[in-house]
Amino acid sequence: MSRKKMILDLDTGIDDALALAYAVGHDDIDLIGIIATYGNALTDVTAQNSLDLLDLLGAHDVPVFVGETHSSTTDSFTVMPISEAIHGTNGIGNVQVAASDRQVDSENGIDFLIEAAHQYQDELIYLPTGPLTNLAKALEKDPSIAELIGQTTLMGGALTVPGNVTPFTEANIHQDPEAADVVFKQQHNLTMVGLDVTLRTLLTKKHTQEWRDLGTTAGQNYADIMDYYIDAYYNLDIDKKGAALHDPLAVAVSVDPSYVTTLDLNMQVTYDKESGDYGRTIGDKAKLLEPTISKAAILVDQDRFVNDFQQMMLKVLA
Amino acid sequence: MSRKKMILDLDTGIDDALALAYAVGHDDIDLIGIIATYGNALTDVTAQNSLDLLDLLGAHDVPVFVGETHSSTTDSFTVMPISEAIHGTNGIGNVQVAASDRQVDSENGIDFLIEAAHQYQDELIYLPTGPLTNLAKALEKDPSIAELIGQTTLMGGALTVPGNVTPFTEANIHQDPEAADVVFKQQHNLTMVGLDVTLRTLLTKKHTQEWRDLGTTAGQNYADIMDYYIDAYYNLDIDKKGAALHDPLAVAVSVDPSYVTTLDLNMQVTYDKESGDYGRTIGDKAKLLEPTISKAAILVDQDRFVNDFQQMMLKVLA
Repeated sequence: MSRKKMILDLDTGIDDALALAYAVGHDDIDLIGIIATYGNALTDVTAQNSLDLLDLLGAHDVPVFVGETHSSTTDSFTVMPISEAIHGTNGIGNVQVAASDRQVDSENGIDFLIEAAHQYQDELIYLPTGPLTNLAKALEKDPSIAELIGQTTLMGGALTVPGNVTPFTEANIHQDPEAADVVFKQQHNLTMVGLDVTLRTLLTKKHTQEWRDLGTTAGQNYADIMDYYIDAYYNLDIDKKGAALHDPLAVAVSVDPSYVTTLDLNMQVTYDKESGDYGRTIGDKAKLLEPTISKAAILVDQDRFVNDFQQMMLKVLA
Repeated sequence: MSRKKMILDLDTGIDDALALAYAVGHDDIDLIGIIATYGNALTDVTAQNSLDLLDLLGAHDVPVFVGETHSSTTDSFTVMPISEAIHGTNGIGNVQVAASDRQVDSENGIDFLIEAAHQYQDELIYLPTGPLTNLAKALEKDPSIAELIGQTTLMGGALTVPGNVTPFTEANIHQDPEAADVVFKQQHNLTMVGLDVTLRTLLTKKHTQEWRDLGTTAGQNYADIMDYYIDAYYNLDIDKKGAALHDPLAVAVSVDPSYVTTLDLNMQVTYDKESGDYGRTIGDKAKLLEPTISKAAILVDQDRFVNDFQQMMLKVLA
């Protein structure tokens, strides 16, 4: 396949750090920029984490842009205690990665996305792993990007399994259901990679030991970061068998859809706080017989993905 | 294919009446009995409706057995006003069908199901279109039927679309979520044909006019019954384009799975009234990496099914 331009929209975040590494290492991906968003940590923190990790991996030429700092319906954002418990207070497992000497780009992340949509069109993959606030804002500024962006693959949502914040909602969607509803109803060529599949892709300390054994700073840092996450999954009783590869699975699916089975479905996100299912990603009953603009991943070849992911990490961390 | 033994467990009900006709007319189905349950009407009423409709269609040799009259957690049952509005006070659109001179069978419906499971095993299709109370009760009496019954195809539930009683629950499941949870967790070779697919299969008065034009009593009666249902769908704003073929789709799928695309998934039903999602059919997070015992229909070839259904009705009503 031809090399795709990719924009990652990250709230870095431990599994975001894995997604970043996976994209940096993938031969078919030309990572043209990272947009920083809020979620696992504050936007300023996630931007710095992305810069630091890019430099750690030798990707000194990938710019980081700053996106929104809070949801579309609030004036500010505070990190949820559960996010801190899973990702650490600094977003990357309280591990100290060497600080990048680079700065964030002066251009706003949303303007960067809109420009890239026009410039690259079908060649562009936009991949948000946090709240969908930046894309909703970009759609508001320039609705044409709904059909311009070649492919939008998001990590978020839960269709056929319960959520992880409430029985209905997954953490990324829960941050800004209004923005998510805008995205699901407008954005074409949208693929949702949600808990349906990501909860089946588990990494263990057996894997991170192999990173550590590389003897590199990157291997050591990433193993420390990921072990924090695996411990959190264990201690918080999220999963005793390992920690889910949420965000990197979305990156893998965006360049190799054969990792998953998808369902063509027009979806919506509930954002009425009175409804009882705030933040639920679900089929849009009114559009069951209409052509679909989106699909949801519902099954995954977890063994193949976890193995391929591990090989990619061993390459990029070496 | 070889002819399958089928037991319909019906709360007849308008779309149950269609399922009954479809099963009577299908060359691959040997309808060995109907179990009457509560739901669209009281069990006594649904039993009588099934007898009357069987006789109307000339299926005088199919016995009707009486099952449970209320849910597994209640002592009695009252028909919901919305059920009466959709199915009429007599369950079949307030249409007067000639009364059968037959009586219900003296054997209890649950015992009949258990015996048939042992007798026919892989050759048996059990097809409930109402609450899952009878099967849960049978499983309690004889857990071995969980793996004995060749195939259980149920109409009920909603996985990728909202429910029709609450945003979470479909009417059949809502009647007895505790029983449904028992069934989903125990019964092997279970296929859920829920709102995900049935809401896409719509019948109109253009179709029922063709039944009427047959000039038979059966054609006239069934057209009157179905027109009541189509009007209810229109007037209650359920769907202005037609009325959903819920129950007959399940029958069709049970003998020709190619009508639908299915997702292999271990499911559960929420029945904690405090949970906020009472009666929700959803993937069982604890069993995402285990072998599956059930599947859910998520896509349907609606044009092919509606056309085939219409041809079947024109044959059986002639």
